[in-house]
Amino acid sequence: MSVEFWFDFASTYSYPAAMTIEDRATAKGIKVCWRPFLLGPIFAKQGWDDSPFNMYPAKGRYMWQDMARLCAAEGLPFVRPPMFPQRSVLAARVALIGLSRGWGEAFCRAIFHAQFATGASIDDSAVVAHAVKTAGGDGDQALKDALSPANKLVLRQNVDEATDKGVFGAPSFWADDTLFWGFDRLEAALDHAARSEP
Amino acid sequence: MSVEFWFDFASTYSYPAAMTIEDRATAKGIKVCWRPFLLGPIFAKQGWDDSPFNMYPAKGRYMWQDMARLCAAEGLPFVRPPMFPQRSVLAARVALIGLSRGWGEAFCRAIFHAQFATGASIDDSAVVAHAVKTAGGDGDQALKDALSPANKLVLRQNVDEATDKGVFGAPSFWADDTLFWGFDRLEAALDHAARSEP
Repeated sequence: MSVEFWFDFASTYSYPAAMTIEDRATAKGIKVCWRPFLLGPIFAKQGWDDSPFNMYPAKGRYMWQDMARLCAAEGLPFVRPPMFPQRSVLAARVALIGLSRGWGEAFCRAIFHAQFATGASIDDSAVVAHAVKTAGGDGDQALKDALSPANKLVLRQNVDEATDKGVFGAPSFWADDTLFWGFDRLEAALDHAARSEP
Repeated sequence: MSVEFWFDFASTYSYPAAMTIEDRATAKGIKVCWRPFLLGPIFAKQGWDDSPFNMYPAKGRYMWQDMARLCAAEGLPFVRPPMFPQRSVLAARVALIGLSRGWGEAFCRAIFHAQFATGASIDDSAVVAHAVKTAGGDGDQALKDALSPANKLVLRQNVDEATDKGVFGAPSFWADDTLFWGFDRLEAALDHAARSEP
């Protein structure tokens, strides 16, 4: 039994999902398949050139307060990064390399931590390389491989697959052909996966 | 200890909130203050002339699936009404009359039930009058009083107050000067109210 975890490194609510999904899934006997993608192209198709949290100030103000409460409740450190949303394409490309080499999940957590626990810029190659090293990979090699045409194509294909699955925000979860959206639906997605046929 | 419950009758997620808030609040010793308002003017200020669930089809498709699951989990009957969003101004005006006369909360539940459990049109005077009667009021009198300039003004003031409090969606909850948004935050809002000074 498994669940696909669709996330964008720039997405605030993807942070608590990334930091807690493995423990929660393991407790229910479910395997997590990490699927990085980019919300930008999906938002652009809706006519947005920015995060709705920036486009709609009341919604944005609320989100930062809600995130602070949510992270406190989950026992996660949280700071509001100086810039939002950050450019997440480099980290997403490196994550794809890492996920094929065994250090991807730890890398994803390291990137989310760097951004939302320390306020670092995840578009900075040095920050990304450090996260690779933390996760047990070779930073320089990973940054090089991440920029290959083949790897860039994998990320574009992920965006297309997310779109086909009806993903319109992050985090999203795909379990037994059913979409769940938002950190608030993580448990429901895992429960749905647990009830599915293996 | 109390919580303000801000809702729009046209809002899907306001339905499970309206049907369950009294039991949940009572269990925590909290009084609920029902605050009907209209999302339309707030959406209009953001440049929207329709529900985001209609403007963004992927988001809308997901919402109807999520509502069906949510209502099943809450043990609430649910049908997708033929029209969405419905015009909620008449029901909101009548709710204000009812809330000042002791039958408002039962009326609100009757309207939400009519719309989301039976698919009825809540802009239909007969449907509204029937809901008033169900709640223990005088339907004809309430419909007449609801259209008074003074009562219309109360609803406009509610919209202004919601805006001032940072409300950008429904349902929203206001507890101890803190905003909580969405049915998913009902318990958090009640817990926050329970921790506040009386």
